[in-house]
Amino acid sequence: CENPTPTPVAPAPDILRCAYMELVVTDLKKSRDFYVDVLGLTVTEEDENAVYLRSLEEFIHHNLVLRQGPVAAVAAFSYRVRTPEDLDKAVAFFTELGCRVERNENGYNKGIGDSVRVTDPLGFPYEFFHEVKHVERLAWRYDLYTPGALVRLDHFNQVTPDVPRATKYMQDLGFRVTEDIQDEDGVVYASWMRRKPTVHDTAMTGGDGPRMHHVAFSTHEKHNILAICDKLGALRMSDRIERGPGRHGVSNAFYLYLRDPDGHRVEIYTQDYYTGDPDNPVVTWDVHDNQRRDWWGNPVVPSWYTDASLVLDLDGNPQPVQKRDEPSEMSVTIGADGFSYTRQADDEEMPEYKQGEYKLGHQL
Amino acid sequence: CENPTPTPVAPAPDILRCAYMELVVTDLKKSRDFYVDVLGLTVTEEDENAVYLRSLEEFIHHNLVLRQGPVAAVAAFSYRVRTPEDLDKAVAFFTELGCRVERNENGYNKGIGDSVRVTDPLGFPYEFFHEVKHVERLAWRYDLYTPGALVRLDHFNQVTPDVPRATKYMQDLGFRVTEDIQDEDGVVYASWMRRKPTVHDTAMTGGDGPRMHHVAFSTHEKHNILAICDKLGALRMSDRIERGPGRHGVSNAFYLYLRDPDGHRVEIYTQDYYTGDPDNPVVTWDVHDNQRRDWWGNPVVPSWYTDASLVLDLDGNPQPVQKRDEPSEMSVTIGADGFSYTRQADDEEMPEYKQGEYKLGHQL
Amino acid sequence: CENPTPTPVAPAPDILRCAYMELVVTDLKKSRDFYVDVLGLTVTEEDENAVYLRSLEEFIHHNLVLRQGPVAAVAAFSYRVRTPEDLDKAVAFFTELGCRVERNENGYNKGIGDSVRVTDPLGFPYEFFHEVKHVERLAWRYDLYTPGALVRLDHFNQVTPDVPRATKYMQDLGFRVTEDIQDEDGVVYASWMRRKPTVHDTAMTGGDGPRMHHVAFSTHEKHNILAICDKLGALRMSDRIERGPGRHGVSNAFYLYLRDPDGHRVEIYTQDYYTGDPDNPVVTWDVHDNQRRDWWGNPVVPSWYTDASLVLDLDGNPQPVQKRDEPSEMSVTIGADGFSYTRQADDEEMPEYKQGEYKLGHQL
Amino acid sequence: CENPTPTPVAPAPDILRCAYMELVVTDLKKSRDFYVDVLGLTVTEEDENAVYLRSLEEFIHHNLVLRQGPVAAVAAFSYRVRTPEDLDKAVAFFTELGCRVERNENGYNKGIGDSVRVTDPLGFPYEFFHEVKHVERLAWRYDLYTPGALVRLDHFNQVTPDVPRATKYMQDLGFRVTEDIQDEDGVVYASWMRRKPTVHDTAMTGGDGPRMHHVAFSTHEKHNILAICDKLGALRMSDRIERGPGRHGVSNAFYLYLRDPDGHRVEIYTQDYYTGDPDNPVVTWDVHDNQRRDWWGNPVVPSWYTDASLVLDLDGNPQPVQKRDEPSEMSVTIGADGFSYTRQADDEEMPEYKQGEYKLGHQL
Ligand SMILES: [Ca+2]
Ligand SMILES: [Fe+2]
Ligand SMILES: [Fe+2]
Ligand SMILES: [Fe+2]
Ligand SMILES: [Fe+2]
Repeated sequence: CENPTPTPVAPAPDILRCAYMELVVTDLKKSRDFYVDVLGLTVTEEDENAVYLRSLEEFIHHNLVLRQGPVAAVAAFSYRVRTPEDLDKAVAFFTELGCRVERNENGYNKGIGDSVRVTDPLGFPYEFFHEVKHVERLAWRYDLYTPGALVRLDHFNQVTPDVPRATKYMQDLGFRVTEDIQDEDGVVYASWMRRKPTVHDTAMTGGDGPRMHHVAFSTHEKHNILAICDKLGALRMSDRIERGPGRHGVSNAFYLYLRDPDGHRVEIYTQDYYTGDPDNPVVTWDVHDNQRRDWWGNPVVPSWYTDASLVLDLDGNPQPVQKRDEPSEMSVTIGADGFSYTRQADDEEMPEYKQGEYKLGHQL
Repeated sequence: CENPTPTPVAPAPDILRCAYMELVVTDLKKSRDFYVDVLGLTVTEEDENAVYLRSLEEFIHHNLVLRQGPVAAVAAFSYRVRTPEDLDKAVAFFTELGCRVERNENGYNKGIGDSVRVTDPLGFPYEFFHEVKHVERLAWRYDLYTPGALVRLDHFNQVTPDVPRATKYMQDLGFRVTEDIQDEDGVVYASWMRRKPTVHDTAMTGGDGPRMHHVAFSTHEKHNILAICDKLGALRMSDRIERGPGRHGVSNAFYLYLRDPDGHRVEIYTQDYYTGDPDNPVVTWDVHDNQRRDWWGNPVVPSWYTDASLVLDLDGNPQPVQKRDEPSEMSVTIGADGFSYTRQADDEEMPEYKQGEYKLGHQL
Repeated sequence: CENPTPTPVAPAPDILRCAYMELVVTDLKKSRDFYVDVLGLTVTEEDENAVYLRSLEEFIHHNLVLRQGPVAAVAAFSYRVRTPEDLDKAVAFFTELGCRVERNENGYNKGIGDSVRVTDPLGFPYEFFHEVKHVERLAWRYDLYTPGALVRLDHFNQVTPDVPRATKYMQDLGFRVTEDIQDEDGVVYASWMRRKPTVHDTAMTGGDGPRMHHVAFSTHEKHNILAICDKLGALRMSDRIERGPGRHGVSNAFYLYLRDPDGHRVEIYTQDYYTGDPDNPVVTWDVHDNQRRDWWGNPVVPSWYTDASLVLDLDGNPQPVQKRDEPSEMSVTIGADGFSYTRQADDEEMPEYKQGEYKLGHQL
Repeated sequence: CENPTPTPVAPAPDILRCAYMELVVTDLKKSRDFYVDVLGLTVTEEDENAVYLRSLEEFIHHNLVLRQGPVAAVAAFSYRVRTPEDLDKAVAFFTELGCRVERNENGYNKGIGDSVRVTDPLGFPYEFFHEVKHVERLAWRYDLYTPGALVRLDHFNQVTPDVPRATKYMQDLGFRVTEDIQDEDGVVYASWMRRKPTVHDTAMTGGDGPRMHHVAFSTHEKHNILAICDKLGALRMSDRIERGPGRHGVSNAFYLYLRDPDGHRVEIYTQDYYTGDPDNPVVTWDVHDNQRRDWWGNPVVPSWYTDASLVLDLDGNPQPVQKRDEPSEMSVTIGADGFSYTRQADDEEMPEYKQGEYKLGHQL
């Protein structure tokens, strides 16, 4: 792994947006129940081994593929590119980077045409495609809406040990940084990057990787997210709620994190802001600012920092996970020597209820 | 203290609703800033020593009095009764109970006429009045609404060592139980009681008392409560958020708990249900049900169980606090030997992120 | 018909609240589709001739009965009373008024016990009961909620020629007026009356009667009402939307009026205010105030003023309809000689888009 | 005026988004009161002759300029381009079209640098700029939010006689059509076009033009729009509400139309959908579909079809208005010979309350 990754001479493909994730699940029936019956995603098509799901405002075949497999993992982070020719560019770009590159003109999933898959310099299985089957955009089908209706795929979130290295490579691939988290020494803990003009199509979270942190779907309004929580309570599945709901500092969006039957993390997200101007101001957050991850200062649960899903190589085997060398965000904020503040100039400690779970010495 | 309290022969006064709380605050300016500038309550009247505040749909003089004093405490839990004659009934009722009873035909606070104050059998300063100055009901004054507009006083919440004793006395006073929390041995941890047909005008929470747990104001919708959190974040006052927002199991309402500059706890609350029929079904929750306090199973912070405000006797001195003899709700749920479940029949432990802060052995 | 109706010596029954309406529908299947599949009411029980429906927060057997019959009409406006003995009081009260009174100890509908039915002095079929079968309160069953979830029956609305006469009789029956609409000559166009402490359990609307103007169900939030509109659009049933959504001046509630397959009018309603104090201020609106019916000044469609449902006598025959002698609200506001204002002191005419449909001389 | 407009050989500038409108108002104080005190836009800067306003999520200097002048009109529809060099492209593009083109390297408004202004082939004053002063993005400043907070400029809407001609020219300029309204003979009544991936940056509405139909700002949620209506009611300014609130068929957004003190129309808008893929499906609506303009079928007021604002030439003089030759949308839907349907196959007439105001023969 070179650091930094070299900038290819070959131009980057013109990526439109994150388009779908292919998730390997160990019990397809259980996963289908969760994503369809609980979260209300729409089945475009399914067979014995896979379920193809989309959100209500989507017009392409799917935003999520659930595929039965032996180990819970991510098989592909898939992006749509502007033209068929952008696939050639993707091949050239990643070949020049020395990555393993494959191409399947029939696509790797139903509904998808000519596709390129790579193991990227960070070890993630990235896919690019343009051709896709159009299906009915259900935006006007309010007879199908549930109280927690998911209307769009919004973004991915990836765990990687070296965030600046990851960010540099993603910028070469055409992504723009919108926000990040740093400390006073310039250590970068996470960065958010976009192609479509929202806060992100994907984010890089510092940690042992390559792993998938979460995949995020949007609702129209905040009450839709609360309705998902209420429904999980009614189904006696509240233990699927890992963190939130809350307001992010980063992105200014309203959020909720769930864990699916395999432990894959799903975010429900709404109301970030327009970022499409080339000089869109980048927002840098101090890692010690207790409002960066949750604007209301509510503690982040440790599992949110530590748990993530394996990702697969192009043969379908889990990628080995590399340790992060730099300090973890958890250790510098809620670990024994970590600290956070509500007001930067304050000397006072935060009240106990803001110091976070499991903070050393805080047990009963 | 007799246990149970005797049932007076004298009929109870006909109580309409919880009407206002008189709070002693140690820095009137700071408290006014919090309740007026941050929470948006309306000042009906004020002087050097006190600020009289009301919610937007109120037509009586005030729902909250902030009074400058040496020790943060509650001077009165004040209820409105149906007629002037109900004050005579209140005098007889509490006199028969052996309580200290005082009466002031000019009222103890501006805007309030003839009033009775008692130290009740539980040690709380209860007030009853009927006469009150009418002021403009601001319900239609949408030009005055803020995103987190508080529209009604909803309820009080009191901490007392012996919940069944407290409940029996309150039932004699005409209150009806709507919900409670018990364990398999019949220990009662809390009960909710109403005069107006909502889930409660006050609740009794088991703990060292008499103390005031919180006073609660209503909003119209859930987003109003989220807006208060967002504003506190913007003002870098997120450390005023102690718990929530969330959905209660008990009451089914959406909630948020704040701490004011003196540490007095204020709940923001919306959307419980109608309870006005005499055979309204009482809901009993199992103390081990992890969805009873938060329908989404999010952990209750320990301070919410342990902290509460002093209350005053009729001379203005803090009442001594009596220890609760029975197990505390915190110890039986998140203490060393406590346990909670999401699904009663489940053998599995809850995921760590649901087990709660400070759970013994869970520190990093 | 005496005017005013005499005040009975017999005490009025203690009415708790409007409890259910029995609607005669001409095509039970079509009506069921509307109330169950479109509006999402819950079927408690049904047979060939009737469907018993309830809202999500209800614990009594039903809030609406759809009964197959030859003529679309209302068979009963049913109120729950506090005790079984209140039925004896109802018998005495209405007997003294010279009304036809019947009693059925097995109830007139499934799930309901001992019941009294009367043709009241205004010609309406009023029912009173106490005994009722309890069913599951679905308040916590968020898995059953739809985006437009109806949570409570809120009120009835009746059309009667002489509003002051109707109001006087209803006050004798124990109702309290909360708001009304009058003109400068003291003509009363409508009045709102309550038992439970909301703006109303029923309202009297001036017009040819006795007829039923509408029955109203509550939602939790305003977006729930918008969701019903969106769904009707998706089902290509937008022509069921007669008026709104909008904000009422009277009651300050957010509203929508629908017409069911027989033309019965159903209101969806949310967020009026507490009225339970005996000195709750009565709000009187000027009939010419263009914000009285819609706070945003949007025109009321003529059908809303003119159309209403027949009501039945105790033999099941439609009651004859008496003309209103006094001016109609429509004629004094949007008729040839009517006028309305946004600001009382204004000389200017309102913009055309506020003058209302069908205003004489405004056709294209 | 050539029809169709020729396609320039010169490449179009790369337009990012609609960025601001310059409105000439006849009473600056009154207009400022409306946009600042009522609608809550933020003043970035102001002087005797102009007020520069922005929405809460904006980081460029302004989204709206109010400029005192003798005749209410639009001085500029201003778009931001990707790079400074795109201004040269704009000059070449419009010069080749034979348009009057001016350039001011200091900008035509405060906060804006080098700018190109043209009178475009349709007669509209279009402006292009890249350089702009950055100001604080107030997205996180929830202490400044009002209940009806406007967070983004969303789009313009222009009235022009020949919609296909307008659309063709706009496509040459790089815009993509997302939706349109046609009849069975192919007459186009309106079309929506975008650069940023929402439904539109501007729309072309068939009618006498060039005129400005409206400028639209976004809120986060639907209740924010309702709050604006409520506030206008409270201020006794409900006559500023011309149409709505409602759900659009076209765009699927929730909307409200207001008229400012000069009669300029402002839309408040929320929740359309992502359109950024090059093969985003175009939605064509039938002009007779009564849900196209309002998904709930509520009638469009005639003034919405007939009224619009003048636009200025580059000397500041009002452009003459050309009549539309083809049938107007109003005449084919609610005029004497027009018709609309809720269900295409239905033979039945719509209920009167859906047929619309002023429909010939429908006066009282
Ligand atoms: Ca915690
Ligand atoms: Fe995320
Ligand atoms: Fe509470
Ligand atoms: Fe009503
Ligand atoms: Fe628009």
